[in-house]
Amino acid sequence: MVTIKDVAEYAGVSVATVSRALNNSGYVGKQSRIKVEEAIKTLGYYPNEVARSLYQKSSKMIGLLLPDISNPYFPLVAKGVEDYAQQNGYMIILGNVEDNIEKEDMYVKFFSQYNISGVLSAATGKKSQNYQVPFVLLDRALEEEDYSIATDDHLGGELAAKAIIESKGKQVVVMAGPKNIAGANDRLSGALGVLNSKGLSYQIFETHSYQVDKAEETAVQLFESTSHFDSVIASNDVYALAVMKEAIKRGYRIPEDIQIIGYDDMLFSRLMYPGLTTIAQPAYELGFQGAKMLVDLIEKNSSEHKKVKLKPKLIMRDSLR
Amino acid sequence: MVTIKDVAEYAGVSVATVSRALNNSGYVGKQSRIKVEEAIKTLGYYPNEVARSLYQKSSKMIGLLLPDISNPYFPLVAKGVEDYAQQNGYMIILGNVEDNIEKEDMYVKFFSQYNISGVLSAATGKKSQNYQVPFVLLDRALEEEDYSIATDDHLGGELAAKAIIESKGKQVVVMAGPKNIAGANDRLSGALGVLNSKGLSYQIFETHSYQVDKAEETAVQLFESTSHFDSVIASNDVYALAVMKEAIKRGYRIPEDIQIIGYDDMLFSRLMYPGLTTIAQPAYELGFQGAKMLVDLIEKNSSEHKKVKLKPKLIMRDSLR
Repeated sequence: MVTIKDVAEYAGVSVATVSRALNNSGYVGKQSRIKVEEAIKTLGYYPNEVARSLYQKSSKMIGLLLPDISNPYFPLVAKGVEDYAQQNGYMIILGNVEDNIEKEDMYVKFFSQYNISGVLSAATGKKSQNYQVPFVLLDRALEEEDYSIATDDHLGGELAAKAIIESKGKQVVVMAGPKNIAGANDRLSGALGVLNSKGLSYQIFETHSYQVDKAEETAVQLFESTSHFDSVIASNDVYALAVMKEAIKRGYRIPEDIQIIGYDDMLFSRLMYPGLTTIAQPAYELGFQGAKMLVDLIEKNSSEHKKVKLKPKLIMRDSLR
Repeated sequence: MVTIKDVAEYAGVSVATVSRALNNSGYVGKQSRIKVEEAIKTLGYYPNEVARSLYQKSSKMIGLLLPDISNPYFPLVAKGVEDYAQQNGYMIILGNVEDNIEKEDMYVKFFSQYNISGVLSAATGKKSQNYQVPFVLLDRALEEEDYSIATDDHLGGELAAKAIIESKGKQVVVMAGPKNIAGANDRLSGALGVLNSKGLSYQIFETHSYQVDKAEETAVQLFESTSHFDSVIASNDVYALAVMKEAIKRGYRIPEDIQIIGYDDMLFSRLMYPGLTTIAQPAYELGFQGAKMLVDLIEKNSSEHKKVKLKPKLIMRDSLR
């Protein structure tokens, strides 16, 4: 590995001069600076980040905590986070915490040991004060957190209900997501607000998880525990897909007999046939903007926006009449 | 933050004693050791990993390079890697390199700056010698690499072709994946070997990428550039889904007019209707075993197995006759 001593020798200056040039502290003559820069370039010298991190008590690393990386929504968020981080010289430490408080505890300790610069968390457990570094809540907004970025799920719920009404749904099932997830409640209240204002008949079907491996049994339960319906507002695209499959198995046509709208806009929603009408969450944008907010906090100790809500939008395909 | 000095004061011993106790080097009296351990527990002291890393010239961090995190196959691999790493006290640094050699260059530099312990790479570019740390090639096997873990893609190709033959395919299109990916060539040769041995008529349709955003245009090209066919061996499940959609749009029935088999066994393949028959890759297992191989290399400088091939298997659903 090339060391600062090698750079000093090559440039014909002292180690102290190289150090001052690197840190922009103290006087370095113009000629010396040029020589140092040339030496750095020629030798391919990179200041040791571990040493720098120890000195500055922070590293250029961001912790990213996700609740379920096997749900295809989160890799898109992660991609947005990583793109912004990379453009700004930060690395991502990935933690898949699976709503498991012990796993998250372990990450809190790790992050402290590694002097991590900041944390972006879409996990449901620990709050900002546990981390003692800049913290941005991702994909959710909570009153007690200062910085957060999330989709406007109330609006998302409204958009879904309006689309069902425009396509002449009469008997609607609204799938209510997990009660401990604020966004799930926002979606539900958005949808119910619109359905109530139009005096439409609806049933609420409660689901206790977004975990993808529960989708099929949930779809079966939906058909067995609710009375006749012609429209479904699903928790997300994975659950919409499972409900569609169960409907077709039971001899219903999509959308003639049962129409359905999802939430997220996954890759398969576009590629499947009939294409799934859904509410698109700006997953990539959420990750990208969340990383930007965190890096602003880390570098300037402030951020222009504290609580950002991104707008979801309706993507019309073939699963509504 | 609690320091080693705080621990020494609380325990009523010298800093040097605490240091010897922590590093298990030199003599520490039994009473002192108990006092130090109590102090560590009470104060919640964690040795600073950055300092330890600087001293030992390595960190407990693993670099994980993926070619496309938005392809739902890779998050499953990442989950396997993360589970093993976490159980063994390692953190994952995630890099989504997108077949982009400049992005990968940047990660090589970063990894060197942070004294990373080892690298797991499913990216197509840089080889082990660029990293100068233990290196395991993930999801691919190359002759010039010492350590790798991959699915036996030759066998996967054979299984797909055999399934097509058993379901009475007559005119087969085999989608050939990117030529620069060894696994894609293995699959192709496995499939062609079986088709040739049975004297079946086939056409090869070349694709230049596995990137998910190319799936739809590739499906259109497939129908426009190949003559009549009744069976498709697709590059992967995402491409199979896109081909199915295009087929249905053009008025073909699945599987009566055109049957299709995928590769990977994605979540949606199980949830869609008709369900996609496919070759399941053990994605989670691949990540888990790959991480184990790397940690063995890091900690013992050896590993029992050098080049591991995991077996894929046929998952029968409804897209074959």
